[in-house]
Amino acid sequence: MKTVHVHGERDVRLQEAPPPSLLRGPEASGRDAIVRVVAACVCGSDLWTYRGFREPAHDRGMGHEFVGVVEEVGHAVRTVRPGDFVVEPFYVADGTCAVCRAGFSAHCLHGGLWGADIAGEGGSGGTQTEHVRVPLADGTLCVVPPGSTGEDLLPGLLALSDVMGTGHHAAVSGGVRPGSTVVVVGDGAVGLCAVIAARRLGAERIVAMSRHADRQALAVDLGATDVVAERGEEGIARVKDLFDGIGPDVALECVGSVEAMQQSMRTVRPGGNVGFVGVPVTGGEVSVRTMFGTNVGVRGGMATVRDYMDELLPEVLSGAIEPGRVFDVQLPLDEAAEGYRLMDERTAIKVMLRP
Amino acid sequence: MKTVHVHGERDVRLQEAPPPSLLRGPEASGRDAIVRVVAACVCGSDLWTYRGFREPAHDRGMGHEFVGVVEEVGHAVRTVRPGDFVVEPFYVADGTCAVCRAGFSAHCLHGGLWGADIAGEGGSGGTQTEHVRVPLADGTLCVVPPGSTGEDLLPGLLALSDVMGTGHHAAVSGGVRPGSTVVVVGDGAVGLCAVIAARRLGAERIVAMSRHADRQALAVDLGATDVVAERGEEGIARVKDLFDGIGPDVALECVGSVEAMQQSMRTVRPGGNVGFVGVPVTGGEVSVRTMFGTNVGVRGGMATVRDYMDELLPEVLSGAIEPGRVFDVQLPLDEAAEGYRLMDERTAIKVMLRP
Repeated sequence: MKTVHVHGERDVRLQEAPPPSLLRGPEASGRDAIVRVVAACVCGSDLWTYRGFREPAHDRGMGHEFVGVVEEVGHAVRTVRPGDFVVEPFYVADGTCAVCRAGFSAHCLHGGLWGADIAGEGGSGGTQTEHVRVPLADGTLCVVPPGSTGEDLLPGLLALSDVMGTGHHAAVSGGVRPGSTVVVVGDGAVGLCAVIAARRLGAERIVAMSRHADRQALAVDLGATDVVAERGEEGIARVKDLFDGIGPDVALECVGSVEAMQQSMRTVRPGGNVGFVGVPVTGGEVSVRTMFGTNVGVRGGMATVRDYMDELLPEVLSGAIEPGRVFDVQLPLDEAAEGYRLMDERTAIKVMLRP
Repeated sequence: MKTVHVHGERDVRLQEAPPPSLLRGPEASGRDAIVRVVAACVCGSDLWTYRGFREPAHDRGMGHEFVGVVEEVGHAVRTVRPGDFVVEPFYVADGTCAVCRAGFSAHCLHGGLWGADIAGEGGSGGTQTEHVRVPLADGTLCVVPPGSTGEDLLPGLLALSDVMGTGHHAAVSGGVRPGSTVVVVGDGAVGLCAVIAARRLGAERIVAMSRHADRQALAVDLGATDVVAERGEEGIARVKDLFDGIGPDVALECVGSVEAMQQSMRTVRPGGNVGFVGVPVTGGEVSVRTMFGTNVGVRGGMATVRDYMDELLPEVLSGAIEPGRVFDVQLPLDEAAEGYRLMDERTAIKVMLRP
């Protein structure tokens, strides 16, 4: 089958690989599934690898988001059946451990990030391919009700795999509630989904920070009430001005840079919150003294998207939310390299890949 | 009048000072009040100065907590009258600015920490004395209903000046709610008040970390369900063990050291919260990457105690909560130095000083 691998900085290639199969033998738990990929996509965090910011990536499968149809399941799988249309979160989880029960399946005691080698359950390759083996299928996969997986719904369902749940996580972590005032830092797919999430949670006013006309327009369409194009000190001052000079209640950090975190912390009012979901590739610290002196809370991290699917899926199916609109480019899997290029250059917001 | 000044490390002295008077003249706003101190106290944060950890403190008035009776008010004061029994928060606030309206009067745009020079309103001396001038009296002072200020209620009312509101702030910042599981790091007066607050907010299980038998007993009396005497790695492991091996939902950091913050962050479960109120005298940073990888949120800071008085005062008056129990020593103002010594050596939990 065809699969997308990275070979170095800005070097992704389509190559052939043997299709995956269920783990067999006496040691196999029988808890995995083989899924045919219907649609995958390129994530902003894939770009960190693509740009060479992360660990040297040589000949490694790419992608951690997809939707597809189950082809085969292990003998111990109970809730997922061949023929089911499923959404995969960007991680593997059993759904039953103490951490999963606490609502944080992204930190499942027996799972791990997509692609990691799960103890006793084997690994999983990249999802920018044709067939994928999913460990711990019962806890990991979300089954979509039959009859609701038409082409028009595909982008929205695929968004649940990461970006919509991640934008939602920013808003939940930042404590957005009815009447909140919110600024969204970052106009990528996650930032735009954070706008959807903030609106959905009842925010009264949502400022999108963006310098790109098309993203500004989409942000407004998705629920932003204000747009601020300025950055840095000027951007902070502009946003503060919109809220009595003191800033909004909540900042949603959807970038992952040290600068975006600092800007978020400095933009909100005393006692406000920063909900953050940008992968902090460049690291960074938050000063306890600064937090103490401002009462600005910081909360966020890896979005626990599997937990959110039960809540968000019905709204995607009903059309109440339209996170699929962040996909502005669709390409055949063969043209994955072009998809990476478009996102790297910010020409595309988010690229869907079709095997 | 007599007043307590600090002169250097572990050197506090009682000395004479002229009594304060209302600001007069054409520039005076008339928004101040003179209050006769009925009871003041020594704060854990006063000990940082006493121990020489903070700015060189030479001949400076000490204390930022008191209750007392209003003697005189400026011409623009509206809600406070001579004869009123009042509780002072440890800061000055106008109660009307945008930040105060957002519920964070501790960061009032026109106020400041007790003792600071308030623009246009003058300064305020230490409260370990006989008479105090209070700037912005309407926003700052909380009037206690007449007839409810007997000797037995005095400790509870004085606790509202700082420690009870601060313990409450830790619990609110940490998101304690009905059913929460909580660990309290720090067995000083604030930590003990955090136990009261966590119980009041409906926590199901509250672990007090303490090595002192008397404080352990008081913590249990105030609502702690478990006591852990171990510290460091051993303490973290013990507490995690009590909660499915993953830790409780919330840690309340009531110390202010780098170690206590790290311990708090490492003790709670993935997706848990740290509510912190310890003054971070030694500074410290929180790694964004660590927060990202654990989804542990950090929120807290200077407690906005004036805002909490409306909610907590009736419960002190009714006896529903008894934060006054943290005062285990009462001394005449003349013996302030002894009070500092007892608290510095942790022989006393909290010392009340009576002028």
